Amino acid sequence: MAGMKSVRGIAFDAYGTLFDVYAVGALAEELFPGKGALLAEYWRVAQIDYSRIRALCGRYRDFWALTGDALDFAAAKLGLALAPDQRQALMEQYAALKAFPENLEVLQTLKGDGLKLAILSNGTPDMLKSAVGAAGMAGVFDHILSVDAVRTFKTAPEAYQMGPDAFGCPAGEIVFVSSNGWDVCGASWFGYQSFWVNRAGNVLDRLGVSPQGEGTSLADLPGFVAQRR
Amino acid sequence: MAGMKSVRGIAFDAYGTLFDVYAVGALAEELFPGKGALLAEYWRVAQIDYSRIRALCGRYRDFWALTGDALDFAAAKLGLALAPDQRQALMEQYAALKAFPENLEVLQTLKGDGLKLAILSNGTPDMLKSAVGAAGMAGVFDHILSVDAVRTFKTAPEAYQMGPDAFGCPAGEIVFVSSNGWDVCGASWFGYQSFWVNRAGNVLDRLGVSPQGEGTSLADLPGFVAQRR
Repeated sequence: MAGMKSVRGIAFDAYGTLFDVYAVGALAEELFPGKGALLAEYWRVAQIDYSRIRALCGRYRDFWALTGDALDFAAAKLGLALAPDQRQALMEQYAALKAFPENLEVLQTLKGDGLKLAILSNGTPDMLKSAVGAAGMAGVFDHILSVDAVRTFKTAPEAYQMGPDAFGCPAGEIVFVSSNGWDVCGASWFGYQSFWVNRAGNVLDRLGVSPQGEGTSLADLPGFVAQRR
Repeated sequence: MAGMKSVRGIAFDAYGTLFDVYAVGALAEELFPGKGALLAEYWRVAQIDYSRIRALCGRYRDFWALTGDALDFAAAKLGLALAPDQRQALMEQYAALKAFPENLEVLQTLKGDGLKLAILSNGTPDMLKSAVGAAGMAGVFDHILSVDAVRTFKTAPEAYQMGPDAFGCPAGEIVFVSSNGWDVCGASWFGYQSFWVNRAGNVLDRLGVSPQGEGTSLADLPGFVAQRR
């Protein structure tokens, strides 16, 4: 179609997009009844905050270690004494997340259509390898890209640049998929076509930029991509 | 004292450190009974998030406009229809904050001791000028430094660099004072001696760095500074 960019590949965010972090909160609630939901929320907020603060200050620390720091902070903030075995159990839960139920079929459909697929995540290579394996997605992705290679975090341009570098085409020919509003905004700024998997019906951040597409699950993605090829 | 750095000046964060943002939440509660506290919290979180995301992406937008964006997002997230006059009232509240009660006397004591004083804030020059005037602090500060001059936000090094540039001495000879844990951590990484005004008894972020001093109000600052001169 005139003026329409072609789509050559799709890059996916990992946590919350491909992999469901619900299990982490469920275990937190089991370990600390009545406080687990808040523990999981504080943990996630600190994890994102620390990635941004460290990226801005040039103080990279890998996402696994940083996720442990965030857990320690969240527990301390709630006044919870986190025993070593509880800490380990929560961290291990994070390393073995399940995929959302629709994901594998959607990924195989896209792959069958000749699209190249990648993960582009703040997670470490080890974390991503574990999650991909646990989700039964081994062999699905052409590239598993961890920001660890560039020692910063999304939304830094150096992180998003890994997509075009791996696919060997401009960002404008790649669809970037994330469940995080800030991530699709950052990706759109960078030059990707972005698609927001808005499972929770959230309001989009007011950053003066919007994703090109939006759906309520990954099942809405193939239709969006088909329109743009 | 051997090995002790001298202190030549003090740089203060503005919001929450010098100026009390409590009034913003109070008006929010008056306008939206039962939802004001959450509106104020979502507003503050989005304001900080947007500053970091924009700084990381090189998409600077001044703090006044960004604060308005964050308010719009917070209201939308809560499903509140924010009328133009309500929006204006909340924004104006932000522009005319009161100082914490102990602050003016502490600042005058430090100034009387021959120390140079500055504000180093994410706020715009206009916002800072209004707040300083409303707090009765005109003439107290040698420098009012807005990150607007460098078009990024704390914790970016370019923002913290404004302190040494204005004072004409290394960061290590300046005490950086903030009520935000992430701000004192960023300042310490940059090279300041940092002092955390921890009014709320918060837990320090787990960023692998600590402030050199901590107090429960600004009244604890002169003692810390006196030990280090």
